[in-house]
Amino acid sequence: MNRDLKKLIAEMTLEEKAGMCSGLDFWHMKGVERLGIPSIMLTDGPHGLRKQRASADHLGLFDSVPATCFPSAVGLASSWDRELIGKVGVALGEECQAEDVAVLLGPGANIKRSPLCGRNFEYFSEDPYLSSRMAASHIQGVQSQGVGTSLKHFAANNQEHRRMTGDSVVDERTLREIYLASFELAVKEAQPWTVMCSYNKVNGTYASENEYLLTDILKDEWGHEGFVVSDWGAVNERADGLGAGLELEMPSSGGMGDRKIAEAVRGGKLSEEKLDRAVERLLNIIFMAVDNKKTGASYDAEAHHQLARKVARESMVLLKNEGGILPLPKEGNIALIGEFAVKPRYQGGGSSHIKPTKLEEIREEIIKSAGSGARVAYARGYDLQSDASDDRLVEEAKQTASQADVAVIFAGLPERYESEGFDRTHLRLPDNQIKLIQAIAETQNNIVLVLSNGAPVEMPWLGSAKAVLEAYLGGQALGGAIADILFGDVNPSGKLAETFPRRLEHNPSQLNFPGEGDRVEYKEGLFVGYRYYDAKHIEPLFPFGFGLSYTTFEYSNLVIGKKSIRDDEQVTVSVSVMNSGSRAGKEIVQLYVQDVQSEVIRPVKELKGFAKADLQPGETQTVSFTLDKRSFAYYNVDLKDWHVETGEFVIGVGRSSQDIVLTGTLEVQSTAVIKPVYSRNSTVGDLSGDQRGEAVIKEWIRLTPFGAMVPEDGEGSEMMAAMMKDMPLRGLVGFSGGALTEEALDEILRKLNG
Amino acid sequence: MNRDLKKLIAEMTLEEKAGMCSGLDFWHMKGVERLGIPSIMLTDGPHGLRKQRASADHLGLFDSVPATCFPSAVGLASSWDRELIGKVGVALGEECQAEDVAVLLGPGANIKRSPLCGRNFEYFSEDPYLSSRMAASHIQGVQSQGVGTSLKHFAANNQEHRRMTGDSVVDERTLREIYLASFELAVKEAQPWTVMCSYNKVNGTYASENEYLLTDILKDEWGHEGFVVSDWGAVNERADGLGAGLELEMPSSGGMGDRKIAEAVRGGKLSEEKLDRAVERLLNIIFMAVDNKKTGASYDAEAHHQLARKVARESMVLLKNEGGILPLPKEGNIALIGEFAVKPRYQGGGSSHIKPTKLEEIREEIIKSAGSGARVAYARGYDLQSDASDDRLVEEAKQTASQADVAVIFAGLPERYESEGFDRTHLRLPDNQIKLIQAIAETQNNIVLVLSNGAPVEMPWLGSAKAVLEAYLGGQALGGAIADILFGDVNPSGKLAETFPRRLEHNPSQLNFPGEGDRVEYKEGLFVGYRYYDAKHIEPLFPFGFGLSYTTFEYSNLVIGKKSIRDDEQVTVSVSVMNSGSRAGKEIVQLYVQDVQSEVIRPVKELKGFAKADLQPGETQTVSFTLDKRSFAYYNVDLKDWHVETGEFVIGVGRSSQDIVLTGTLEVQSTAVIKPVYSRNSTVGDLSGDQRGEAVIKEWIRLTPFGAMVPEDGEGSEMMAAMMKDMPLRGLVGFSGGALTEEALDEILRKLNG
Repeated sequence: MNRDLKKLIAEMTLEEKAGMCSGLDFWHMKGVERLGIPSIMLTDGPHGLRKQRASADHLGLFDSVPATCFPSAVGLASSWDRELIGKVGVALGEECQAEDVAVLLGPGANIKRSPLCGRNFEYFSEDPYLSSRMAASHIQGVQSQGVGTSLKHFAANNQEHRRMTGDSVVDERTLREIYLASFELAVKEAQPWTVMCSYNKVNGTYASENEYLLTDILKDEWGHEGFVVSDWGAVNERADGLGAGLELEMPSSGGMGDRKIAEAVRGGKLSEEKLDRAVERLLNIIFMAVDNKKTGASYDAEAHHQLARKVARESMVLLKNEGGILPLPKEGNIALIGEFAVKPRYQGGGSSHIKPTKLEEIREEIIKSAGSGARVAYARGYDLQSDASDDRLVEEAKQTASQADVAVIFAGLPERYESEGFDRTHLRLPDNQIKLIQAIAETQNNIVLVLSNGAPVEMPWLGSAKAVLEAYLGGQALGGAIADILFGDVNPSGKLAETFPRRLEHNPSQLNFPGEGDRVEYKEGLFVGYRYYDAKHIEPLFPFGFGLSYTTFEYSNLVIGKKSIRDDEQVTVSVSVMNSGSRAGKEIVQLYVQDVQSEVIRPVKELKGFAKADLQPGETQTVSFTLDKRSFAYYNVDLKDWHVETGEFVIGVGRSSQDIVLTGTLEVQSTAVIKPVYSRNSTVGDLSGDQRGEAVIKEWIRLTPFGAMVPEDGEGSEMMAAMMKDMPLRGLVGFSGGALTEEALDEILRKLNG
Repeated sequence: MNRDLKKLIAEMTLEEKAGMCSGLDFWHMKGVERLGIPSIMLTDGPHGLRKQRASADHLGLFDSVPATCFPSAVGLASSWDRELIGKVGVALGEECQAEDVAVLLGPGANIKRSPLCGRNFEYFSEDPYLSSRMAASHIQGVQSQGVGTSLKHFAANNQEHRRMTGDSVVDERTLREIYLASFELAVKEAQPWTVMCSYNKVNGTYASENEYLLTDILKDEWGHEGFVVSDWGAVNERADGLGAGLELEMPSSGGMGDRKIAEAVRGGKLSEEKLDRAVERLLNIIFMAVDNKKTGASYDAEAHHQLARKVARESMVLLKNEGGILPLPKEGNIALIGEFAVKPRYQGGGSSHIKPTKLEEIREEIIKSAGSGARVAYARGYDLQSDASDDRLVEEAKQTASQADVAVIFAGLPERYESEGFDRTHLRLPDNQIKLIQAIAETQNNIVLVLSNGAPVEMPWLGSAKAVLEAYLGGQALGGAIADILFGDVNPSGKLAETFPRRLEHNPSQLNFPGEGDRVEYKEGLFVGYRYYDAKHIEPLFPFGFGLSYTTFEYSNLVIGKKSIRDDEQVTVSVSVMNSGSRAGKEIVQLYVQDVQSEVIRPVKELKGFAKADLQPGETQTVSFTLDKRSFAYYNVDLKDWHVETGEFVIGVGRSSQDIVLTGTLEVQSTAVIKPVYSRNSTVGDLSGDQRGEAVIKEWIRLTPFGAMVPEDGEGSEMMAAMMKDMPLRGLVGFSGGALTEEALDEILRKLNG
């Protein structure tokens, strides 16, 4: 429906307009009854709806209406399947419509800077290319149902420690290439109705009042059309925030924020036009919600549960499978060890914690799947509420395991280990779980480990397990999905969207996490995740992009469409993938781009494409990728733009970031014209290649002591050549002992720069 | 002799005064004949005198008077022997007196940030504690002879790449704790007559015109009494430099610099008082040289050669000695392989390159030492002028090695690999040497590797060698020293003053070396050398402080003098060391301090003491160390002072940075009074411990939605506690929905801060 919003705004009082810029309460925006502006509801997500019951506490953390719990973002991302994530979004949208929720607060596109971040399970990846595409698909799915999203937490909110006051100090290039890039494509491609600004400061200014982020980049550069909402309680100075581009404060501050805005407008500190534009953005979305509202909507909870199971299967990553111990035969004696088997950890803690419509017990699902051919025993093994080992439980588990053909141990992180609100301080499993694994290994060689956790753990016990299935936080249907994979009813196909380090200290942020006081410096710069392990030659436990299958895949016939392109052209890359095993399976094919030589510091390689091929045994598919300027560019802070350096790039295609199977090269020509500017401190080397300058300089060198003495070849020749190359022009003047003058240098510089 | 310098300066014209501030030519300062001010000479060092012959080119790089070539600084530092380095200084001073040189340009105290730096051989260590003490002893030795030194290159000049225009971007704390600390004690304890400013910029300002470095820190804080001289050609804008504290420009700029100074004074841009103070500092040193001149001095070249041999023995580090293959018996067949055996690399390239009084050939010295009982054969193995393998040389070497009982391979870096002027780009030996080692290993199991190089190399071939002796650049008497150690006439005692990484990429500066364009950011911060490998748990090839002996040492009885001290008190730590083997030997005992818990990011541990014990078999010595405030302090950038946090410190004593044998603890109480200042963005956690604040805040929390809902224990309790701890006070106001006001918060803050 077309409405004249400008007319509507003109009818509003200053107080009404200011009032629109904050919540009515914890979960609703304000309406203006006399003008027909309704109040709409925003609620937590993003892997399920967390709508507070009327009777619940204000945050609604501990009581909400039932909703389908899908796998957490870390698992969704491990599917590398945009279509599937879109389907999750559609289901979430349907549930929002049924519950009269206008905006679902998610997805989260923050980069996993450190594996310690308590909220990593809610985020997709350490890589911005993958993360932004997962987020875009999620948003597109939800919004296809007429329900809005809130892409969060914008920006550089990569830890929970002091998140409300911390200052993320990130250099511009890193911000652009890593932390903002993870949001950029999602905004441009999927236009989330809202973007949620984060609690923290970015380079000294609160995200909630960061004009550079909220207006210059988000609205002006990226063209975001919706509004920005504060993370709950992220407002620092409300009027500054509105001026910077924060349209909506949540939750209500009891009128305090509204008064500050009105005062600022009256005092001339904030222009009313700015307020009007903010209100227009708010009304736009409010009426978009109104127009898309599906009255009397409902959803098929069982179908959503089945979708959750399907998604969970694709989210799990098989990390190890020695001797092909998996899949398990549906026969013999199977011991299930560990309390997670009956009290599964299937979602993360905090604002995303929901009440599932139903919950599969892992043990039950395994028994169901195994059928009558197998005998399934269970032992608790450890107490989830404690880290202390219980000898009785361990003995019982050993006993159970020793009588079985295989022991499937369920381990991972209890909820008290990882949650919104705090970061982990180590990557270990609880002590009692480690001891349990060691104890079982004494009596049983066939150990399969199933992990439930939202972020990497160290695995000093890896040698004791023949197989490891990373089940992440698999949502309410995790039990069935685990059973499907363990018995081979489904072939695992997930691949890691993050690096598992051998030990915590190896991770790139380690020396600067969680910072000093309120200041956290991102000194590792661009070298986040695999970019760091690659460049530092530190072997990870499991690399980014890694995941096993019950079948095998062969790569062949890498074709790069052109030998050379201009940076404003595109190129198509294709590769053939064959299922060379005997089971159907899916392969996630990854494409990485490497700049062979650069004037700036660049990662060894970066993910610039991925595809998932579903292949029957013996089947071959050709998957293709389109590369464009951004595939080769870095963010040039001087140009304030993405820039490609003319030169050779290597295109690598493979199974993981550390298993590049095929490579080819491509020449890219820059279309940017960058004119060098020379100064008295430009070096002789800087002028090499500039014909006019070079001639003068050669003549000049002859007038310095170096002219006569440089040996062409022989002792010291490398040194003399290097010294001369790095000699600034003013140095030639100085060393000339008066033969050259600064005036002559100025004249040459004028000519060269003119 | 007492002179009235102020009176003398008053008699000088402006031009004469400005003239004093630059060189007469390449190597001399100006004098003023009419006022009896003589011209004195400065020449390169620092491990030997490089005095240009009159006939030589201007830089005198390729012809100089003969002088004793001592081991390079990297070797000197590996002795960890201050007394010995003092003796080297004395000898250098004697040679300067004999050659009428007033100031020797050295030592170099730059920190080895990257193993690639082409000039690392001229620097002592990656650790400022060790480096500054080595430099102090060197200076004290030289200056005891009435000859000045020039402590260089001040500051943050840690690479050769673009050294004349590069900008070292280093945070204040890292600058203070690492890069400046390496100069600080040497200045304070040894008062070098001159300090040489470096070519590069530091945080945006050329070192040669960096008032913060040259005046605020060097002169005012540290009390340097001499003058600052520019590195040759380091002057950018001469008048700015003089204003910043650069007294002497070298070499002559043909009057250009002098004119600029005079013009600046006339134009009122530079005060004449500043110029007068500069001239006074210059005259002070000139007359100090005059007063200390020993007319007709000479030196005993043979005695200096013998000293060079003694120093070389202490400078070499035994890195590996499998099965005790060393020392070699003086019998049987010994094959010497590699051209270095007859063309030794014994010094680095560039300004420190000298013409030795004599030069020992390694082969000759080994034959001499071996005596008649052994047969010594030699094969060239590779061509030092090339990296290409020569099959004929390899075959010949294999042949020679196969007929011997042991093959001693001489390998290392040819001079074209490392020099002043350029940095290495990798840490590998030349390809032909690697191939040679592999070839010899095919035919001979008993391989001893002797390395000549000025900085770490990678050792992929380490498994092929039973022993590795790091001989560094051993000076003119390296041959005898190597023979002494190989045959056990001397027991090796050197220990590494730097980390040898397993591979280049592991080094801490790797991601930011040599920078982008003219900008190099020291993003690894404090984590230089072992501080990095410790914190990152990256296993080095050989750790800082490591070195083997032909005997063994046992540590016992660590005694920390007090249980607790105030930070203005000292504590004595002692430990007993016993030679538990059957040969006399020397053990370098190292003391490291670790702050157990800190509010700031700190290295795991830092070297704060070392001692060298010379022990007969069975002998025990007790060595002791004195620790003071600086042993426990970090540089607090807010206080602009060194600061100790009250708490527990671990004192570790051991054989190397990775072999701490004994530890104890000490409580240190800070005497600094730091009053916290609270703001609206202080967190609830920040106020914990502040009784007045805590009481108010508890009351306040009750007025927010959190007050009612925080579960004491159970689901979500960790999260709620963490969220509350990190909640800023303004957040409590916001969440209170109007129950709390900003005015009330302001009132509380006034009281708390008042």
